[in-house]
Amino acid sequence: MDDPTDVLARFGKKVRALRIAKGLSQEDLAELCNLDRTYISGIERGRRNVGLRNVAALAASLGVSLAQLFEGVTVDDQSASS
Amino acid sequence: MDDPTDVLARFGKKVRALRIAKGLSQEDLAELCNLDRTYISGIERGRRNVGLRNVAALAASLGVSLAQLFEGVTVDDQSASS
Repeated sequence: MDDPTDVLARFGKKVRALRIAKGLSQEDLAELCNLDRTYISGIERGRRNVGLRNVAALAASLGVSLAQLFEGVTVDDQSASS
Repeated sequence: MDDPTDVLARFGKKVRALRIAKGLSQEDLAELCNLDRTYISGIERGRRNVGLRNVAALAASLGVSLAQLFEGVTVDDQSASS
């Protein structure tokens, strides 16, 4: 069994990868999302249980769909159902 | 401009569609996710700004990946970036 917070860490890594691919600093992304830079930093470090509204703001600011934002972000329990 | 809560409504509709496709009642899904049935009902009605941990629990219980769970759940601001 995986730590339940790991999905937060995987989501954070994905956000960071997309942000860097887009050439944005954490400050840039924070401003685009209307969030605090420290909150973006916390998301990227897997410390934030981000709500759907902020997830949607991140996707919009990163120029990806929600499905693209979650592509490759795995949920461990899933392997049990396959 | 769309109401910012609309992503919650679209997410809720997707959860409901996947739940019904899987032949689950709200009670069944609630039990699988270890959440309250009224919380599932609130999600499906777009009243809940669901956090990533519960989003992951929903995906696992519905037997889909996070990317599949969000497939077709649009973010309005996105059209501005395309």
